[in-house]
Formats: sequence, structure tokens, C-alpha cells
Amino acid sequence: MIKVVVDAMGGDYAPLEPIKGAVDAVTKKDNLHIILAGKEDIISSELQKLSYPKDRITIQNASEVIDTDEPPVNAIRRKKDSSIVVGMNLIKKKEADAFVSAGSSGAILVGGQVIVGRIKGVERPPLAPLIPTEKGVSLLIDCGANVDARPSHLVQFAKMGSIYMEHVIGMKHPRVAIVNIGAEEEKGNALVKETFPLLKACKDIHFIGSIEAREIPHGGADVIVSEAFVGNVILKLYEGVGATLISMVKQGMMATLRSKIGALLVKPALKDTLKAFDASQYGGAPLLGLNGLVVKTHGNSRAREICNSILQCQTFKEQQINEKIRESLSLESAGE
Amino acid sequence: MIKVVVDAMGGDYAPLEPIKGAVDAVTKKDNLHIILAGKEDIISSELQKLSYPKDRITIQNASEVIDTDEPPVNAIRRKKDSSIVVGMNLIKKKEADAFVSAGSSGAILVGGQVIVGRIKGVERPPLAPLIPTEKGVSLLIDCGANVDARPSHLVQFAKMGSIYMEHVIGMKHPRVAIVNIGAEEEKGNALVKETFPLLKACKDIHFIGSIEAREIPHGGADVIVSEAFVGNVILKLYEGVGATLISMVKQGMMATLRSKIGALLVKPALKDTLKAFDASQYGGAPLLGLNGLVVKTHGNSRAREICNSILQCQTFKEQQINEKIRESLSLESAGE
Repeated sequence: MIKVVVDAMGGDYAPLEPIKGAVDAVTKKDNLHIILAGKEDIISSELQKLSYPKDRITIQNASEVIDTDEPPVNAIRRKKDSSIVVGMNLIKKKEADAFVSAGSSGAILVGGQVIVGRIKGVERPPLAPLIPTEKGVSLLIDCGANVDARPSHLVQFAKMGSIYMEHVIGMKHPRVAIVNIGAEEEKGNALVKETFPLLKACKDIHFIGSIEAREIPHGGADVIVSEAFVGNVILKLYEGVGATLISMVKQGMMATLRSKIGALLVKPALKDTLKAFDASQYGGAPLLGLNGLVVKTHGNSRAREICNSILQCQTFKEQQINEKIRESLSLESAGE
Repeated sequence: MIKVVVDAMGGDYAPLEPIKGAVDAVTKKDNLHIILAGKEDIISSELQKLSYPKDRITIQNASEVIDTDEPPVNAIRRKKDSSIVVGMNLIKKKEADAFVSAGSSGAILVGGQVIVGRIKGVERPPLAPLIPTEKGVSLLIDCGANVDARPSHLVQFAKMGSIYMEHVIGMKHPRVAIVNIGAEEEKGNALVKETFPLLKACKDIHFIGSIEAREIPHGGADVIVSEAFVGNVILKLYEGVGATLISMVKQGMMATLRSKIGALLVKPALKDTLKAFDASQYGGAPLLGLNGLVVKTHGNSRAREICNSILQCQTFKEQQINEKIRESLSLESAGE
């Protein structure tokens, strides 16, 4: 039985969508137990409306909620009875395996490090969302809040990202590349130039060199290594350009009577194609390198994303990803 | 009379499209003189096929061509008779005002600094392309090859970018923002944190704070300040995500018979809308802060982009941008 805590109070559509996502997940999989963390009265009244295997969803009361605009460090320190702190404490006490939340990114990142804690040897836990490409998905590692990384951090990101893509997403020998402003080895800023030879020397990853940002949407690499500032810019620009272009395409289709008729005919096929360009079907962004698993899903997550994130936690646990990370990092220190 | 040198050998469609672009420009504007730099025999045989005011296009012979895959520093040093070196020398000798090329970005950046030279007081000349947004265009400064910038560089970029947007693009009081991973002042990497208060203290720019990458396509700021590594990632990802999404929309439209018919009806309106999302109508990317003007246009530029870049040089000269930059920087050093 795998135990996943779901933050029932996190995200734009809480508590309804996280609760529905939890119900969907236990309906799909037998060996899952969900703990919904949040205000007990609200959660139980919502649960009563739904049908599900009663023995596999329990509630852990938490009277407080951390808002997305609260300074994260303070929020984690002060709101001891918030759904995030209560949920993460269950991971810390080994009463559950994973924590899924669509709540405050900052609080999740801080809580992951402070409450759940790092695997011994992990210098910095990266946040690693999946981004859509023409060919499927790539893992963008790191998009977290800890900027100004050192080369050794990036090497660990490359290793953890490879393990995740291979064993959770099921991609054999994932291609690892470092974000750079040219394909040649001598290009790049100081951090990239120092990191490049270290990645090249790594025996347990499939390093293919530099990747220019232009090649990311074409699926030029499977694990895209970057320090968090650049990773964050990539992630958010991806969303921004995508949203802008799709809204402009819609506008264009509504411009004339002729185009409106065309839009009706085009719509179903277009919807299917664009659905492929949506990474949320794979689940949320894992915060890797922790003693347990923390998954951050998008703030606007619906039941589907929450359910996929829960199933992702199951694969993570079954594939013993943390054991594999420990092994990979200890090999490294033994080799030095 | 404003004199612009056009690199007739640069870009995917050289020499035909640069030559056509030059002809278009002198046909549109009376006070323009174009010098086409490149292989004289090829250029003159192409020119003979076109009709234009003969006295306003001349040829400057250059027997060599710098390829896009040549290491830039070596290419500029060795190919003394290349169209780029010959063209830039005309600017250096004050025999022309500006240089436009669709050729090797690296060689143009190196040549601009080494041959044309910086305005006294400019620490680093930034490459500043215009990028399309929902609302029009924004200037992304710096996307050049010099990474690991210092705060004082970014402050100069903000000033030069503001002058350019106001006087060349014609935007009153352009909003300046620094690329960051959150809107709050305390967010960011070491460079951004150091630069933020310096920008805030600048009296001659309209600084509005941080901009997250997500807001760039929505037109969240007019002058987007960033060091070159991040700027380069933004520029290339913009192109990559745009190209991928548009190709997916096209694919979707061709999926079924129904959608194909719809596509025919939608096409004209869609084309008009997406044309608005194309910054090349404003010209190429200026390399700012030089003794003269160097404009880099996209490698796949057609006559239209070359012509627009030439007209942009005219505005640059007429609006005395370099005098304004000199003034802005000397005010700064006087104030210190």
C-alpha cells in the first residue's frame, strides 16, 4: 500500500478538485491510500457527495491555509497547523510516502527542504517540471527558488533527472543536455563552462552536450539541465508564449464570418493536436532529492492533474527512485 | 543624405534579397544612399536587372565572405577583404553612417566592437532585438555574445534601450523592467539584486521593476533588461515555441477532411493576426553603443526585412541616437 498526502486546501480550485482527484486515483488503483490534509469539516462534507472505497481515503485535519502571496519562510515557520506543514510532517514521520499540492510554490519549496529534508549527499533539491515538446515531454531541471547554483549542483541535477525520466516516465537512456547560448563546447557563461566537462565525465548519464533554447520545444533533449534562474525563465516563457499564440489564433479565427465558420470545422482536430502539447497528463513537478517525495502541481490544477500527480507518486515509490538517487550519489563520492 | 552600407553577401538569401532590399529602400526614401558591400561582378549583374535611382546605390568591392560557422574572432582578423570587414571599415572611416547585415552574428558582434568601436563611456555594446508581443513590440536588451554582465552594464543597457524605443520606435516614456523570477524586490539572483536598486535610482528612465518571463509576450514592459545569457535564451525560446505551436496548429488543421475545409476558410484571417506577431517589420537588431550603427537582421531575412532595417538606420541617424546616448552617459558620470 502506497500512502499519498494530498493538500486539500491548495490551488485555485481547492478543496473540490483536489478531493475529486484523490477519489479518481483510489478508484483507478487498488494499492493506494490517500490522506486529505485540510479543514476536516469542509473535506468530509465534500467527500460525502462522492462515491469511493471509504477505507482508502482518510482525512488529516489542518486548521490553517497558507496563501500564495505569503512570504514562504514565515508561513512555514508560523502556520504549524496548515495543510502544507501538517502534510509534510506526515512524510517526515514516515507515516506517508509522498505529498501532492497545488498550493504556494514558495511554501512547498521551503517546506520540502526544512520539514521533509534532503537525502544525505544531495546538495540542493531541484524542482523539475515536465514541459511539452513536439515529440512528447522533457524534464526541465531546476526551476526552483535557489538561484546562483554551483557546477556540482548541476551535475547532481543531471543524475537525478536521468533517473526520474528513465524510471518514472519510462524513457530509456534519456539524453541529457545543458542549456547554453551556442552548441560549441567553448560557448557559455562561467557556470556552463565549468559544468560542461564535469557532465562529459559522468559515466552514468547520456550527456549529449549543449542545447540552445530554440531546440527545447523540438524535443532536442530529454533532461534539460539549467540553474534555477534560467530554468524559471524558460518555464514561464514557455507558458507565456504558448498562451499568447493560442489566444491570437483564437482571435484570428473570430475575425470574420468566413473565419468563424472555418473555426467550427477546424476546432475538434485542433483541440486534439494542442492537447498533445500539454504536460499535465504526466503529473506535477517533483521536488527531487528529498527524504520522501513532494510534488508541486500547477495552481490551476483540476482533478485530472491531481490524480495524475498521485499516480506519479505511486510509480516513484514502486520504482524506488530515492534508493536509486542515493546509489547514484554514493557511487560518485566513492569514485572521487 | 544618410549613407547605409548593406552586406550584399550576408544571410540565407544573399546576394539577391539584400540587393532587392537596398533598391526598395532608395525607392521609398530620397535622402538615402546605399553602398552594397560584396563581390562587385555578382552585385552589378544583379543590379542591372532592377530599376532604381542609379546615383544612390554604389558598390564597394569585397572579395571574401565570412561564413556563419567560422569562429568569429579569427574570421574578422583574417578576412580583411570580406563584406563585413570592408563594410564596417567604411563606418569607422566615417564614410558611411550605418551597416546592415544578415550574415554571421558572431562576426558582426566582434566586428562591431573591434572595428567600429564603442562610444566613449559605453562599457559593453548590447545587441537589442525587438520581440513581438500582444500589444506590439518590446526591446530585449542584451542578447549578444558577452555573458556574465555586471550591474553597471545592465544600467547602461536600460538607458540605451529607453532612448532607442523612444526615438527610433516612437514610444513615449518606455516602461523599463528587469527580467526576474518573481515580482518582489527581494527576489532574484545576485546580479538582479544588485542591479535593481541602481535602476530604481535612475532618473532618466521609467523603471517599473521586475518582469517575469510569462509577462513578456503579454507586453508587460517595453524595454526588457537582462544579461546576455538569459536574453539569448528568451530570444531563442520565443522563436522555438512560436515555430512549434504554429506548425502544430497547421498539422491539426490538416488532420481530417472537415478540418481541411475549415482551414481554407480560416487561413486569410489567421494570416493577418499572426503577421502582427512578427517583429521584422520594425527592422533588425541594433548593436547599440557603437561609433556608428550596426544592425544585425535575421539570417533568413528577405528584401522586406533588409529594407526595414535600412529605414531604421535612417531614423537612428536623424534622431541623433548616438548623441543622445553620449549625453545620457555623461550625465551619469557627472552625477557620480
